[in-house]
Order: sequence, then structure tokens, then C-alpha cells
Amino acid sequence: MTEPYLHRVKYYETDMMAIVHHSNYIRWFEEGRVDYMRKNSIVMADIESQGVQIPVTGVSCDYKLPARFDDEVAIHTRLTAYNGIRMTFTYEVYRLADNKLLVTGESRHCFIQTVGFKPITLKRSLPDTHQYLLQLLAKDSSRTED
Amino acid sequence: MTEPYLHRVKYYETDMMAIVHHSNYIRWFEEGRVDYMRKNSIVMADIESQGVQIPVTGVSCDYKLPARFDDEVAIHTRLTAYNGIRMTFTYEVYRLADNKLLVTGESRHCFIQTVGFKPITLKRSLPDTHQYLLQLLAKDSSRTED
Amino acid sequence: MTEPYLHRVKYYETDMMAIVHHSNYIRWFEEGRVDYMRKNSIVMADIESQGVQIPVTGVSCDYKLPARFDDEVAIHTRLTAYNGIRMTFTYEVYRLADNKLLVTGESRHCFIQTVGFKPITLKRSLPDTHQYLLQLLAKDSSRTED
Amino acid sequence: MTEPYLHRVKYYETDMMAIVHHSNYIRWFEEGRVDYMRKNSIVMADIESQGVQIPVTGVSCDYKLPARFDDEVAIHTRLTAYNGIRMTFTYEVYRLADNKLLVTGESRHCFIQTVGFKPITLKRSLPDTHQYLLQLLAKDSSRTED
Repeated sequence: MTEPYLHRVKYYETDMMAIVHHSNYIRWFEEGRVDYMRKNSIVMADIESQGVQIPVTGVSCDYKLPARFDDEVAIHTRLTAYNGIRMTFTYEVYRLADNKLLVTGESRHCFIQTVGFKPITLKRSLPDTHQYLLQLLAKDSSRTED
Repeated sequence: MTEPYLHRVKYYETDMMAIVHHSNYIRWFEEGRVDYMRKNSIVMADIESQGVQIPVTGVSCDYKLPARFDDEVAIHTRLTAYNGIRMTFTYEVYRLADNKLLVTGESRHCFIQTVGFKPITLKRSLPDTHQYLLQLLAKDSSRTED
Repeated sequence: MTEPYLHRVKYYETDMMAIVHHSNYIRWFEEGRVDYMRKNSIVMADIESQGVQIPVTGVSCDYKLPARFDDEVAIHTRLTAYNGIRMTFTYEVYRLADNKLLVTGESRHCFIQTVGFKPITLKRSLPDTHQYLLQLLAKDSSRTED
Repeated sequence: MTEPYLHRVKYYETDMMAIVHHSNYIRWFEEGRVDYMRKNSIVMADIESQGVQIPVTGVSCDYKLPARFDDEVAIHTRLTAYNGIRMTFTYEVYRLADNKLLVTGESRHCFIQTVGFKPITLKRSLPDTHQYLLQLLAKDSSRTED
């Protein structure tokens, strides 16, 4: 499986409750997603340089336990839906020190042209990326059945 | 109904897609929620000074249209669930210039003691706030039925 | 003089010291600067739509007293240097409740073309804006001599 | 010398100029400082757990070249002043791909008690940390003379 993304909690990510502000987990999902794609040979910067953007159409997040300053966390990212037009990633954030599950969530995406913002199908626009994503979906789905 | 909270998009809220980064809407929900409570005589800072915190246990957000730098948006906040132990707010973000709905979402909360982080029932810990919240729930629910 | 920009401290701007994280004042300076220009008929979004960007070439900030959640602060912005190629703004952040000076700082800027990032002189590229800025400099400088 | 801190630019750190928003370098300085202290056996979280906080009393930053999404940067941190009451760190941010200097800056700090916010001298409050810092200052200063 794709190795998780490691993140050490920054001081500026905490709030006056002395825990990580809840909005930052949405940013960590993005860090995990970009890293996941890089580790699977899909470089976000390359996609954008080809005139394609992958906006977020929805997110959800469930907070179970808070992360704190200096905690090391592992963000596990999986591709759980992809059909050439839309895709969904799911995330699990674990604290390394005790392996506790802190947060789960998902993000939903579509594909658009940078110029004009028209939705596109990745199969036609970026066929190589499309094939990679189908393979990733198959791999990540089979893992779920373990 | 409670007047919406107005927010003008900051430059630092944009990303390289030249739209508001999707994580910031979660922050705007918080701004809307704090403002909603203040307008209804519930001051978050007062609650925290009484040793009660209101952590977020979950959020979700659906992105329909992007906000851009300098846009003025109105965040409409409603209390849509409250039972003394948990509560849910729902949000609608409209752009003022064309009154288009940009984003919808919700946040879920519980109540805990600042010292020890034990969950509490607001009815016992902050009875006045509890009564206000019940009234707000009734008011916001009746509006939904319009 | 140009009316100050008012900002109410957001929960997400605090850190685990229960004060505003020091990086956020740099963002408030930007809010103050954009508002100052708008109040003086210079709209940042218009400038950018004409192919000109105003990057920050330097900032400095001195922290005297911390702002806290829900504080209302006034950001006083003045144009203190401008020569068509570079400009400097200075900032003073006051807490409204007790009128105490919390933070002072400045930001330095130049002007570049959006395409190619070449430095430009505003006198040639945006002559109207150039004239406005000269007038603002004169006005803000005379105030300093009071 | 202390190894630099490596940071890969996040998507959410960019702004609509398609470069890293200038406020984020102040946050990178903090990341570099915390990492520098950890690598030199001074753990910020430990200091805070002993009732001491190290607020920022001032920052400055000069922007030479912009960092962009996915760039890997190295943040070089040095302790350049320390007298038991105040300390100053200086920072240099380099892009790894071409070793270009992007940003320089400094941050100034004092030491206070978490309860009451009274300034303290580190020599008395945390003598071991005090000794470490004196050694670091000597080491980082001698390097400057190379």
C-alpha cells in the first residue's frame, strides 16, 4: 500500500484550546493527497502545468481525538472512488506515539480546464493519469476487502 | 431570523487557482457561528471563561461556486439540532454581488470542561445558555418549515 | 485621515498561548492596506485586472501587547514612502476596548507585470493610480508632522 | 553546524499570485526555530511544560525570490543574539532545486512565565537551557566569522 504521509504538528496550527484547530485537518488531507499522488507517480504540479485543475467539490471530517503541538501524525490516504469525471479520497490520521486514530475524513473532486473552468473527463484530457488512477482505485479497493 | 455574518474575502485566503482555498470556508463557518451566538446573546468568550469549551466533533462542506478576492459574502448560520449534549449548525454562504449560493455545510459540536476535557450537559453546567439554545433551535426550525 | 480598518479577532487566529499567533498581524497589515487603498479609491482587484501586481518585498513587526480572541482592533495604515517604483506602508494596531497600542509594523512593495514579473514604474503603467499615491503620500506625511 | 530544516511548499500556502503568500515565511521561521532547538536538544514542548513561554517580540523578513507550490526549501536557522533575557534568531530560506536564496529574516524573543506572563531570566528559571543557548550562540557566531 501507499506509505502514509508524516506530519509534525506546527505551533501555528494550534488554537487557544491548546489543540490543533479543526480547519487544519482539511489542509492535512490536502498534504496527504498531494503526497499520495506523488508517491504514485502523479505529480499535481505536472497536472496543473498541463492546464488541468482538480478542485475540491466537498469535504467531510470527523474529529475523534485532538492532535497537539509537536505530535507526529501519519495521514493514510486512499482513493476510494474514481470514474474519470469525479474522484473521492478517504483519510485516516493516526498519532504515531500511541497509534490512536485521531481523525477520519474524505474529499471529493472533479477535473476542470484551467482556462475557462469547464469540467473535463480525465480519460480524454490526461489518459496516462486516468490509467494510473484506475489502477490505484483497484489497489486501494482490494485492500479494503482484506 | 438572525442576520447573516458578512465577510469580505482577504487576499491571503486565495490560492494559486485564484479562488478561496477550500479550507477557509471551514473557518468562515466558525466566524459565522461565533457571530450568530453573539447576536443571540451567547458570547463564546464568556462561555470559555466559565470553564466550558465547545469543540467541533465534525464538519462537512459542499462547494458549488468559488469565492474570489474582494468578494463580499454573507454567511447564514442556523442551529438545526440541540439536545443539551450535542448541537449542529448549518451554513449557507452567498455572494452578495449576485446572491448566488457558493457553499453549504454543517458543523457538529459537544460541550466539555476546559479542565479535564470531560463531556458535560449544558443544561446543568450553563442553564441560561441551555435555555437560549433551545429557543434558538425552535426559532430556526420553524423557519425551515416555511 | 483615512479611517482605520476594524477587525474582530477570530478563534482560528489564536494559538496555544491563548493569544493571536504572531504571523497573523502580517495578514492584518494586508487587510489594512487593501482597505486603505479602497477607501482612497484604489481597488487592488482593479489593479490586478490591469496586469499589475504589488508584491511585498519586506515586512517588519514589533509586538508590544497581545490581542486575544474576540478583541476588536483598529488597524491604522499610512503610506510613508512612494517614488513610483517602491512604496512603504506603516501600521499601528490598537485594541478598541482600552485604546492600547498592540503592534506596529511596516511593509515594503514594488510593482511588477503579472505576465513576466518584470518590475515596472507605476507612473507609466497606471498614471492615475500614481497620482493618487503621490497625493496620499503628501497627506499622510503632513499628518506625521502634526 | 545545525542541519537546515526542510519544507515542501503546500498548495494551501500559495496565493492568487501563484506564489507562497508572504505571511507564510514567518510561519516557516517558526518551523525552522522549533526544529533548530530540537536538533540542539532544546524541546519547545518541554519548555512550555515547565511553565515558560518564549513569545515573539519582533520579526522582519526580506523577500528576494518567491517560492512556489511543491518547491522544496531549506530553512537555515542560527542563534545570533542571546543574553538570558532576550534572544534573536536569523533565517535564510534556500530553494533546493537551484540553491537560490529566497528569503532572509530574523525573529526576536523574550522569556515569560505561562502563569502571569511576567518576564523571566532563563539563567535562573531554566539553567540547563540557558547553558545550551550560550553554547549555541558561541557556535553559531564562530561560524559567521568563517
